[in-house]
Amino acid sequence: MTTSPPAPSVSPGDGEPLYRVHVFCCSNERPETHWRGSCAGRGSRRLCDYMCRLGMALGARRVRINHAGCMNVCEHGPVMVLYPEGVWYRYETETDVEEIMRSHVLGGVRVERLVLSIDPATLHG
Amino acid sequence: MTTSPPAPSVSPGDGEPLYRVHVFCCSNERPETHWRGSCAGRGSRRLCDYMCRLGMALGARRVRINHAGCMNVCEHGPVMVLYPEGVWYRYETETDVEEIMRSHVLGGVRVERLVLSIDPATLHG
Repeated sequence: MTTSPPAPSVSPGDGEPLYRVHVFCCSNERPETHWRGSCAGRGSRRLCDYMCRLGMALGARRVRINHAGCMNVCEHGPVMVLYPEGVWYRYETETDVEEIMRSHVLGGVRVERLVLSIDPATLHG
Repeated sequence: MTTSPPAPSVSPGDGEPLYRVHVFCCSNERPETHWRGSCAGRGSRRLCDYMCRLGMALGARRVRINHAGCMNVCEHGPVMVLYPEGVWYRYETETDVEEIMRSHVLGGVRVERLVLSIDPATLHG
């Protein structure tokens, strides 16, 4: 059975979001030989921790950086997603992470060179 | 140093989001004696796994249920957040989780009795 997408649930009384930017970095790890690979196998945990420390050092307010389980786009990893915007990034280095933090999270300007555009039709499984 | 919230980064070329509803359940665990408690200490991992299986059983499409690290609202736990809406829930039982899945995730109607309204000014740390 499948279900149709519902209309968004919007409440006129909604206040401001708890986190202005809520970042989730996939931290899933698979065996090295797994055909899909994994974000943690490509260094995501260390880079996520770096991003968290960087945010604190820069005084980022109402920003939360979280590890998350497998987000099912392993082939593109390491990936992170920024909500509520729903922007996905692929990052490889501390330089990438710092650019995302300074430009997008703090400055509101996307880092186009790292934005990951994934066709929902290609989702695994 | 603190920074001001930037304007949202909006791109006219944005396509549909990868996940129509992306759920993150806090799965952080602390020692039982910790004063803040923890979501996993109150059963969040098992309930998150239940929600994931339920979504698959109900044929939920473009929906992802993920475990996540500490989302810093431990006192209210177990908590989950649904993005891109940014709606937070407190849940205690499989019945709660099933109602969130059927009513909100699949039906687009919030479960008001479980919605968690958290004042950003009260965030810990």
